[in-house]
Parts: sequence; structure tokens; C-alpha cells
Amino acid sequence: MTKIIGRTSWAIVGGNIALDQSGPEPDFTSRDSLSMLNLGAEDAQVEITIFYVDREPVGPYKLALAARRVREVRFNDLIDPEAIPLCTHYAALVEANVPIVVLFSRVDTRQAENARTASMAFPGE
Amino acid sequence: MTKIIGRTSWAIVGGNIALDQSGPEPDFTSRDSLSMLNLGAEDAQVEITIFYVDREPVGPYKLALAARRVREVRFNDLIDPEAIPLCTHYAALVEANVPIVVLFSRVDTRQAENARTASMAFPGE
Amino acid sequence: MTKIIGRTSWAIVGGNIALDQSGPEPDFTSRDSLSMLNLGAEDAQVEITIFYVDREPVGPYKLALAARRVREVRFNDLIDPEAIPLCTHYAALVEANVPIVVLFSRVDTRQAENARTASMAFPGE
Amino acid sequence: MTKIIGRTSWAIVGGNIALDQSGPEPDFTSRDSLSMLNLGAEDAQVEITIFYVDREPVGPYKLALAARRVREVRFNDLIDPEAIPLCTHYAALVEANVPIVVLFSRVDTRQAENARTASMAFPGE
Repeated sequence: MTKIIGRTSWAIVGGNIALDQSGPEPDFTSRDSLSMLNLGAEDAQVEITIFYVDREPVGPYKLALAARRVREVRFNDLIDPEAIPLCTHYAALVEANVPIVVLFSRVDTRQAENARTASMAFPGE
Repeated sequence: MTKIIGRTSWAIVGGNIALDQSGPEPDFTSRDSLSMLNLGAEDAQVEITIFYVDREPVGPYKLALAARRVREVRFNDLIDPEAIPLCTHYAALVEANVPIVVLFSRVDTRQAENARTASMAFPGE
Repeated sequence: MTKIIGRTSWAIVGGNIALDQSGPEPDFTSRDSLSMLNLGAEDAQVEITIFYVDREPVGPYKLALAARRVREVRFNDLIDPEAIPLCTHYAALVEANVPIVVLFSRVDTRQAENARTASMAFPGE
Repeated sequence: MTKIIGRTSWAIVGGNIALDQSGPEPDFTSRDSLSMLNLGAEDAQVEITIFYVDREPVGPYKLALAARRVREVRFNDLIDPEAIPLCTHYAALVEANVPIVVLFSRVDTRQAENARTASMAFPGE
């Protein structure tokens, strides 16, 4: 009965992984995260491309997202083809071979109390 | 004169109910909440399915949302067919027989000052 | 050269005006706010209807929004036909005779440090 | 292989640059920011118009956004044709000659712990 909701491309803007943090790891590490949902019956192959202020885009970073499953990825953990530098503005294009749903959330733990934002990625047509 | 705004399916991503909390219950319980609005003249039958990282989806959780009414539901309170485990990544599909509007909000009270996010659920076509 | 962006109906969910506050008024009053933009050349007549959990909708609350102008309205200040009760879940339907853009923001000052969320209202077709 | 996601016009509402701040500059300056992404192969010419509560719109503020690049702009730094006054409600229309993606984020550092919000700008058709 479940309907398939999602898109095959999403853009994320406003990324910036803070250098400093307070509190114990890993729960209180400053981080940018990607939450992905695949409502469909087919496994998704996900490719992420990272865009910067002053150099060429880097990618693709390849991830799998199984059918009817959730996956949470920290941008801090994307290391192949290369790690995303800290304290650097970036954006991301998330593409998949089947429709998925993508949320971008940021936690900044540089102060005693965490600052937190979440916003839907912007969907392609 | 009121127009009907809404969709019959919505996806929520980025769910995770924190274990710890500070401050008195229930206002300062860590929580993930669903705010729903039915602008129409017909009562809505709502069904929620919960998706996880590493096991099959669970549901439906059945809720009623009366015509021209608001309802706020804490994911912490969804217990039939089973409670959502704490400290676990999840997503949700919200489906209704008539158009509704859905907001997802999260309050994390693990620190002295609450961190709070709110984002519209992602609508189906 | 300016394009007209906007919709003539918007839904806001997740409203709840907190009772307590900390810090000096009015900057640190707990509040739910509506930010509206009219990009067009014609003044907008705005009507807001408030929806509740367990009683009939109340409204319309009538507001003017001049052509090419911004207006910020605190839900706390809507008093005709009646004030919105504090500590009560509500939603709102915002309708206008010309396209406008609507943002909903909430500031909760019950703790020493404010919790703040902002999300676009959900647009009608 | 990259798809082009974006729109040529975006509206931002709820702007207000706070006067006070705490912590060292520039990381802890109260600020409203615009994060922009150009996924395309052509450089973007961006024009921003600022709307106010009680006077005529001001602009355009002209910015360049190179092909396949990210750019972050603080509204505090927009000074030509004139600086945006502090503690003043404003909105913005962002227009470009090619599709771009725009996020609006606000950091308020008037208290010891920063309050932070982020929301996608509202896209034109």
C-alpha cells in the first residue's frame, strides 16, 4: 500500500564542518549529517558530489542505501576520494538511481550548548 | 471560503529519540513530534509506517485526525504495534485518506538548554 | 524586472505560544511569528484562520500587507476576533488575494538561552 | 552526469540582523547569511533586492557566482547601493540568469549560546 515518495537528485547548501567541539565523542562531535530514506523495493546506489568556493567539485562519493531502509551519513566520514576539509564552505549534490528522500542536519558543538539546524535538501524536478 | 491545502502522503527523515533528558517531564522530555493539520470537512484516517537502518519497516500505526482540527503526536507515544526504540535512527511515512499538512519537530533536552529543530515533512506528489 | 514569487494560501502547523519567558520584553518574549512578503505591485488583503485540537476554527483575523513590503506579525498580537490561548497547540491558514510569501518562526525563551526554529509555511497549489 | 538543480528566482523572508553580539568576531558576529550553489557550467550573475516594512525596495545588489561553485554571503556585508540597517525586518528577492540553489541562515549571538536557524529560500516557478 506504501506509496513511493522521493526524487533522484537533491542539492544541499550551507555545509561547513566546525573544527572545535565540546563534550564527549561521538555524540557531541560537531558534524554535518545526511539522513536518507529509500521507500522503494529496489536498493539505491547513491553518488555524492561536493562543491567548493574556489576549486573544482570532488566526487563521486559512492554509498548504498538498501530498499525500505534509512541511512545516516556524517559528511565528516566521507573520505574516498578525499576527506572534506574542516571550516570550509561546501555544498553537495546527492544523486540516486531510484527515488529517495534526503534531509540535511548540522550540529555545532563549539559552545557549551549545541546549536542545531535541519532542513530538507532541495529536490530536483 | 477556506481552501484545502495538503497532501495524502508525507515522508519524515532524521528521526532519533534521545535517551537522556534534563528538566521536568513532560515539557522537557526529549522528543520527536508530528504536528498534523486537517483543513478539510472530512475526518482523516492516518497511517504511519516506521523505517529503520537494519530491519524491516514496522506499522501501520493508526491515528484519527478530525475534520478542521490539529493534532500533535509524540513518536515516543506510538506503541501499537510496538514502541520505537530510543537512540535509533528512523524515518516515517505518513499516509492519509484525505489531504493533510505535516510538520516534524525535534527537541533534544540532553543539555541544560534545549536544542530544537522543525522542518516540513516532504510531500508526495 | 522583479518576478512575482508567492502563493495565495499557506498552511502553518506546529504553533504553540509558551507561557513562561526569561529576559526583557519585548525582544525576549516567547513568541510565534509570521513573516510575510508581498513582491507584487498590488496591496494584499490577508486573512488568517486559526485551527485547534478540540474546537472549531476561529477567524478570520484580517491584516493588510502593502505592495512591495514586508510585515512581521506576532501570533501573540492577534486579538480580533479573539486572542490565541497560550500553551495551546494550533495551526493557521493564511490566505491572500494576491501572491505572498510566508515564513513561520518560533522563539521559546523559557530557558536562559532561547530555542529558535524557522520553517517556510506550506504553500497551496 | 551531474543534473542541473535550481531556480532563477528565490524569496527570503524573516531577515533581521541583530545589533548585539557575544564572543569573538567574525565567527560569533550576529549575522544573516545566504548560501548559494551554482551546479551549472555557466557563471551566474546574481541580483538581490531588499524589501522593508515601511519604505521602497533597495537594489539591485550585484554578485557573481562562478560555474560549479559555492558562495556564502553575509547580508551584513552588502553595502552597495547601501548597507542594510541593523535591527530591521527585511526580506530579499534573489534573481539569477541561470538556475542556482539558495539557503538562508541566521545566527543570533546576543546570548551566551548562539541561536541558529536555516531554511531553504522559497523558489519561484
